[in-house]
Amino acid sequence: LRQGYPEVIFCQSKTVDQVVAICENIAHKGNNVLATRATPKMYAAVKEIFVEAQYNEMARTITITKEEVKEDKGYIAVVTGGTSDMAVAEEATETAKALGNEVRTVYDAGVAGIHRLFANLETIQGARVVIAVAGMEGALASVVGGLVDKPVIAVPTSVGYGANFNGLSALLTMLNSCSSGVSVVNIDNGFGAGYLASMINRM
Amino acid sequence: LRQGYPEVIFCQSKTVDQVVAICENIAHKGNNVLATRATPKMYAAVKEIFVEAQYNEMARTITITKEEVKEDKGYIAVVTGGTSDMAVAEEATETAKALGNEVRTVYDAGVAGIHRLFANLETIQGARVVIAVAGMEGALASVVGGLVDKPVIAVPTSVGYGANFNGLSALLTMLNSCSSGVSVVNIDNGFGAGYLASMINRM
Amino acid sequence: LRQGYPEVIFCQSKTVDQVVAICENIAHKGNNVLATRATPKMYAAVKEIFVEAQYNEMARTITITKEEVKEDKGYIAVVTGGTSDMAVAEEATETAKALGNEVRTVYDAGVAGIHRLFANLETIQGARVVIAVAGMEGALASVVGGLVDKPVIAVPTSVGYGANFNGLSALLTMLNSCSSGVSVVNIDNGFGAGYLASMINRM
Amino acid sequence: LRQGYPEVIFCQSKTVDQVVAICENIAHKGNNVLATRATPKMYAAVKEIFVEAQYNEMARTITITKEEVKEDKGYIAVVTGGTSDMAVAEEATETAKALGNEVRTVYDAGVAGIHRLFANLETIQGARVVIAVAGMEGALASVVGGLVDKPVIAVPTSVGYGANFNGLSALLTMLNSCSSGVSVVNIDNGFGAGYLASMINRM
Amino acid sequence: LRQGYPEVIFCQSKTVDQVVAICENIAHKGNNVLATRATPKMYAAVKEIFVEAQYNEMARTITITKEEVKEDKGYIAVVTGGTSDMAVAEEATETAKALGNEVRTVYDAGVAGIHRLFANLETIQGARVVIAVAGMEGALASVVGGLVDKPVIAVPTSVGYGANFNGLSALLTMLNSCSSGVSVVNIDNGFGAGYLASMINRM
Amino acid sequence: LRQGYPEVIFCQSKTVDQVVAICENIAHKGNNVLATRATPKMYAAVKEIFVEAQYNEMARTITITKEEVKEDKGYIAVVTGGTSDMAVAEEATETAKALGNEVRTVYDAGVAGIHRLFANLETIQGARVVIAVAGMEGALASVVGGLVDKPVIAVPTSVGYGANFNGLSALLTMLNSCSSGVSVVNIDNGFGAGYLASMINRM
Amino acid sequence: LRQGYPEVIFCQSKTVDQVVAICENIAHKGNNVLATRATPKMYAAVKEIFVEAQYNEMARTITITKEEVKEDKGYIAVVTGGTSDMAVAEEATETAKALGNEVRTVYDAGVAGIHRLFANLETIQGARVVIAVAGMEGALASVVGGLVDKPVIAVPTSVGYGANFNGLSALLTMLNSCSSGVSVVNIDNGFGAGYLASMINRM
Amino acid sequence: LRQGYPEVIFCQSKTVDQVVAICENIAHKGNNVLATRATPKMYAAVKEIFVEAQYNEMARTITITKEEVKEDKGYIAVVTGGTSDMAVAEEATETAKALGNEVRTVYDAGVAGIHRLFANLETIQGARVVIAVAGMEGALASVVGGLVDKPVIAVPTSVGYGANFNGLSALLTMLNSCSSGVSVVNIDNGFGAGYLASMINRM
Ligand SMILES: Nc1ncnc2c1ncn2[C@@H]1O[C@H](COP(=O)(O)O)[C@@H](O)[C@H]1O
Ligand SMILES: Nc1ncnc2c1ncn2[C@@H]1O[C@H](COP(=O)(O)O)[C@@H](O)[C@H]1O
Ligand SMILES: Nc1ncnc2c1ncn2[C@@H]1O[C@H](COP(=O)(O)O)[C@@H](O)[C@H]1O
Ligand SMILES: Nc1ncnc2c1ncn2[C@@H]1O[C@H](COP(=O)(O)O)[C@@H](O)[C@H]1O
Ligand SMILES: [Mg+2]
Ligand SMILES: [Mg+2]
Ligand SMILES: [Mg+2]
Ligand SMILES: [Mg+2]
Ligand SMILES: [Mg+2]
Ligand SMILES: [Mg+2]
Ligand SMILES: [Mg+2]
Ligand SMILES: [Mg+2]
Repeated sequence: LRQGYPEVIFCQSKTVDQVVAICENIAHKGNNVLATRATPKMYAAVKEIFVEAQYNEMARTITITKEEVKEDKGYIAVVTGGTSDMAVAEEATETAKALGNEVRTVYDAGVAGIHRLFANLETIQGARVVIAVAGMEGALASVVGGLVDKPVIAVPTSVGYGANFNGLSALLTMLNSCSSGVSVVNIDNGFGAGYLASMINRM
Repeated sequence: LRQGYPEVIFCQSKTVDQVVAICENIAHKGNNVLATRATPKMYAAVKEIFVEAQYNEMARTITITKEEVKEDKGYIAVVTGGTSDMAVAEEATETAKALGNEVRTVYDAGVAGIHRLFANLETIQGARVVIAVAGMEGALASVVGGLVDKPVIAVPTSVGYGANFNGLSALLTMLNSCSSGVSVVNIDNGFGAGYLASMINRM
Repeated sequence: LRQGYPEVIFCQSKTVDQVVAICENIAHKGNNVLATRATPKMYAAVKEIFVEAQYNEMARTITITKEEVKEDKGYIAVVTGGTSDMAVAEEATETAKALGNEVRTVYDAGVAGIHRLFANLETIQGARVVIAVAGMEGALASVVGGLVDKPVIAVPTSVGYGANFNGLSALLTMLNSCSSGVSVVNIDNGFGAGYLASMINRM
Repeated sequence: LRQGYPEVIFCQSKTVDQVVAICENIAHKGNNVLATRATPKMYAAVKEIFVEAQYNEMARTITITKEEVKEDKGYIAVVTGGTSDMAVAEEATETAKALGNEVRTVYDAGVAGIHRLFANLETIQGARVVIAVAGMEGALASVVGGLVDKPVIAVPTSVGYGANFNGLSALLTMLNSCSSGVSVVNIDNGFGAGYLASMINRM
Repeated sequence: LRQGYPEVIFCQSKTVDQVVAICENIAHKGNNVLATRATPKMYAAVKEIFVEAQYNEMARTITITKEEVKEDKGYIAVVTGGTSDMAVAEEATETAKALGNEVRTVYDAGVAGIHRLFANLETIQGARVVIAVAGMEGALASVVGGLVDKPVIAVPTSVGYGANFNGLSALLTMLNSCSSGVSVVNIDNGFGAGYLASMINRM
Repeated sequence: LRQGYPEVIFCQSKTVDQVVAICENIAHKGNNVLATRATPKMYAAVKEIFVEAQYNEMARTITITKEEVKEDKGYIAVVTGGTSDMAVAEEATETAKALGNEVRTVYDAGVAGIHRLFANLETIQGARVVIAVAGMEGALASVVGGLVDKPVIAVPTSVGYGANFNGLSALLTMLNSCSSGVSVVNIDNGFGAGYLASMINRM
Repeated sequence: LRQGYPEVIFCQSKTVDQVVAICENIAHKGNNVLATRATPKMYAAVKEIFVEAQYNEMARTITITKEEVKEDKGYIAVVTGGTSDMAVAEEATETAKALGNEVRTVYDAGVAGIHRLFANLETIQGARVVIAVAGMEGALASVVGGLVDKPVIAVPTSVGYGANFNGLSALLTMLNSCSSGVSVVNIDNGFGAGYLASMINRM
Repeated sequence: LRQGYPEVIFCQSKTVDQVVAICENIAHKGNNVLATRATPKMYAAVKEIFVEAQYNEMARTITITKEEVKEDKGYIAVVTGGTSDMAVAEEATETAKALGNEVRTVYDAGVAGIHRLFANLETIQGARVVIAVAGMEGALASVVGGLVDKPVIAVPTSVGYGANFNGLSALLTMLNSCSSGVSVVNIDNGFGAGYLASMINRM
């Protein structure tokens, strides 16, 4: 672990007590904490011990910053298809920030209204890595991949209904992308995308 | 059947003899013929009897025109993602033409190289109906649907490999399209798309 | 946006506050509003501000009509297989009406009791576009497609149990329809069908 | 085994020699033979030993009749959606005949052209059991089930392409049939349908 | 409808009020009523109007008998693999009884403890039709099919966990049964099995 | 590697030359060889160098025995549902024998004709481990599991057609077995079953 | 049933009353009881009658020990990938213990942090049987299988999200394991793994 | 296009003539060529015109180098699980080399024999990017991901049989990887992995 780098807790199948215990354990070593999939209740319990703890409700992340970490690289762009994809996008954003990256977001720029994507083209093309978050048909990753010459990390989301089959539709779309430079992480895996983007941005 | 409208033969699971017999049966009534999924051998056999028979090798269609049919409406645009989708697109095109429609094609304009799509935007936006044919990730239908205010008929193709699962990937993408006005026909069903487009264009 | 045409809000993953805010935003521009997948709570909150707001409980739609819109075309027929498909059918109906179309409905006319379908054949064959809504085996779309010479928009519903797999069964049936002129939208996507039907009816 | 009833050989994964050997074994006991999924080569080899052997090329069945068997019951109707379903239908027909039943066939009466079904309604409604064979969307079983008050055995076929996924589409349709009295056998299992129909007809 | 035969209500997606209304409608015509998938609340409401209404809690069926119906045929056997399959088996049993059949049940005789099946072999082999109800691996239908010379109607249930995928496992097992004379209805469709069994038993 | 134990070659995606080279490499160390999924051509090439090489055509295995290996334990029983499962069963048998085990086989004892299973009950119940090989509905593993008090290794085979989906049906059946003591290996994986059975038998 | 061996109750689809009744039935015969998938409510009710009853909350098992059972064999190792897999692992552990086996556990040793696996290698390699419990990618079973020369029973768990599809991902991984000696039980089936491990350990 | 960078031809659905024509077109502009999925016949035809053309038979790639390209960065490691994954690995390797990267390969280091992986740990940990290619259970990507602190690009292959379902098994495993820094490309997509790895290595 590099100096100031956070240790990460995946809260999904843990109890409030377990999360608090792990937080204490990490913080006592003087390390930063990033907790994902955290409920408001978990945050309330953590906040009682660590007043500096921050909660991003949409991302469902808790961060405890003992020591600011800051990389001197370019920024990561996080783009979403719809507003409903924002929770996953925020998880990616919080993760990348906690690892010291600058992040710029372009939300609700899905391909059904492609003009919004083009209106933000400069931001997207200026990034060192792009995270493309989309549910339903997931076409965003391909379009973005065709517009930039940088690695694109595609995150399918489970947003949608019917034949989207809980994200399967967006997942398959993204795996079949004709655009070079696109790779895929698990459905709704904002953390994984943020972590990998940071890893690439550090290079 | 309106005057001059072709009767259609789906050749896939028929023998050469069966196809020839049906052709004769139709033509003797003085009607035009459209045969889809026809092999070169079928064409050779049909050609011996009907010298005016035409074969589109890529579309795998035979047409026998007894009487020209021509609708006085706007045109149908047929757009494809890649060159490999052209066989299905040609089946749609031949079908629409046989039903009296003008067709304009924009091939290989997939979203990975979206500039080619924009270079042909006028053609696409000028159509009364658009047929969007794409395999792999099938994102084309959503992008086109977002750019035009006309019905878009999406045709997933079985072109691709791996997680495209013989067209399932493109099919799900298209069914989940966020763009309004998009509906979907069966994988590789160029005929169905051409037929429906013609029906709408006649209105 | 044509004069009097509604803007559409997809409420599924939005909060009550977000829905109210978007309604206000649209209505202040003087535009009509159509909100789909709206809960009774959303309606209650919207109603407090817009007294003219209407709620279709079965369709789960809110409409706010600032200016009546009316197309002078023929009507759209909406046919369902069972009574359980009516929620989706009503979403389609409300959408088409909000876009200025006349709609005639034939509910509970599934193929298991095909006489009910034939009893309403005149209504169905007189329409300019037909929307066929069915769950379970979804055979309705094929039968209707074989009886009319107009575009049929098939909407699979998630109604059923067991091997219907949340609508997959009806979806596959409809995609494989042998009847020409049938295309398919996403499972339970009444809005999409109503929107597309209106687009075709306007031609 | 009742007097004159055939023993059955499923040839699919057997060699020519194995099939001949089993035939000899059965025939020497004086029993009739029904071999399904038999290749022309198998027939040729069997014919050399049993001159009375008969081959139904479409059904791919061999029958060796040592003693005629004849039940004095009503007849079984075998209905198909398309011409491509005829191979499976013939397997069912040959099986039912070999078991002593009278069989009447109504082929190519699929729901896309429902008038052909109604033109043969008397034959269908007069049967004691109906076998409905259909591929693609498989809607035939539901429609027939709604029209008759007798057991309907539905046989999905693997005929079709794209989203029919080798018969899955028709299988799911038939399992979800809203019509009472419909049950389903395996994809392409004409033998199973013929056997069960005979069992019911004997009652 | 034959004299005394019940009309059937499928309550699954209906309100209490709708069910009561349909009951009244049927009973006023003097017909018997069979309501499936009925909740205790529905029963309470129906009972207030029809004191003679009966509820089978496990089967979730309501029956209102205006006139006893009784066929003079042999009996139907209903066999289950486990105790958890009893709800579906009872739906089948109630349906067959309401249609005038004698029913004998052999519950919890799954193949993992095959001695229980053999202990009841006489009952099973004496029936004119057998309904085999099983979840998890669904092997019961094949074993029963191999032991009797009568039609076997297989009902897969959604009972189980993990790779049973809500009944898919038992469904596929039963469709692939090597035993002749076995056909399959939808997952958990006790009604369908009881109805078909009655139809066959009447012959 | 214990003295005399064979090294194993999985030939499926290897060239004839590669197989020969690996054989030489192993044999020169004085070790026995077991090659699975070997074609007749591979055997011919190996035989030219190692005259003692043996080929089991059905199992598609080559064995080169430099030193006989023999465990002094009880025997392994290999049971199959049908004759078509014998190739996979033989692969298991050859593997277990090459590892020094005694093997007794009970082939074609599927549950559709359960009397054959009972006729061989003594052999099956006397084994220390049972390998149950079955395709189609795969019910054999459950029935055997219920009859013995020893570990049962279930091997689904891809034998069948239609809704067996290349072995998926038998696989799911076996995973859902209600019988205790049953575990499952990959579809058609006779080698894996034989190897594991030997491992258990050695204990 | 050997002396002291528990009878097993699978509580999943049973009522509290049913579980209590079966417990009494077994205990009155003087036998030990193991109840799996038991809720706290079931335990409370059982505890009122049997004061010696024990509840393992994580495993959701109740045990009533009338007579201690103890095998004099080596131990079984239970290894998990993550902490979230512990519930399933504990079900396996309780089952194996109730059957008289010594069990040693190595939890949270997943392959993403493979050093934890190696730190416990001696424990794992010293066991007579290893149970490998893992969700998400399920790679643990393959890695463990490659490190030990003993039977490995793989238990996929439904722990995870997205493309894990309720355990399908881990299930497929484990079935495809390249390591010899690995077999698989149903998703989340800790009981089945514990039972089989005990059976093998007794040999 | 940077100086010396190759243009890429995806030969899969192209004719020999089309491939030759595109090669000439590119080479005449003075650019390097990389053709993937190229058959020996395509190579023969290309070689006649471009004597400097090179063919990698295993990778199925043709390269025509007009001007050497060489990046001055660290190297990319390509690791495979088995020897059967080498074709896909070589496609990745050729692609990365054609784009100017140094590549070091560690083949046949799958997790079933994890010592081979550790024997090459230095090479793997020294790379700037790692490409992990594996079929069957695909566990390699997780293990490698846990051992390195660099981006890992996982390539599932279609190598295997049975429940591997043409690569689906490895694909799901890799998407569910617990190791941070792992992302996934399409099944068998060696080109995509090599291209993305080069993009990251250039940073
Ligand atoms: N029921 C529905 N299903 C799918 N899409 C819908 C539905 N209702 C509205 N939409 C689409 O959602 C868009 C509005 O989405 P939003 O910006 O999230 O309010 C509309 O323009 C429609 O294209
Ligand atoms: N449990 C059930 N599963 C499937 N279909 C049923 C069931 N119970 C009743 N039905 C069918 O549903 C019809 C009544 O449906 P409804 O018109 O909605 O009351 C009956 O005629 C039956 O064919
Ligand atoms: N967790 C479990 N998963 C699967 N099967 C179980 C489980 N626990 C117990 N069983 C089985 O269920 C049987 C008892 O079922 P029952 O007769 O319903 O009590 C036992 O003999 C076991 O074979
Ligand atoms: N093996 C491959 N898999 C997927 N895409 C590829 C592969 N090889 C080349 N490509 C892509 O295909 C493009 C060329 O396709 P085309 O225009 O059909 O010649 C290249 O620019 C790459 O982006
Ligand atoms: Mg790009
Ligand atoms: Mg549009
Ligand atoms: Mg029509
Ligand atoms: Mg009927
Ligand atoms: Mg039988
Ligand atoms: Mg047992
Ligand atoms: Mg091992
Ligand atoms: Mg890592």
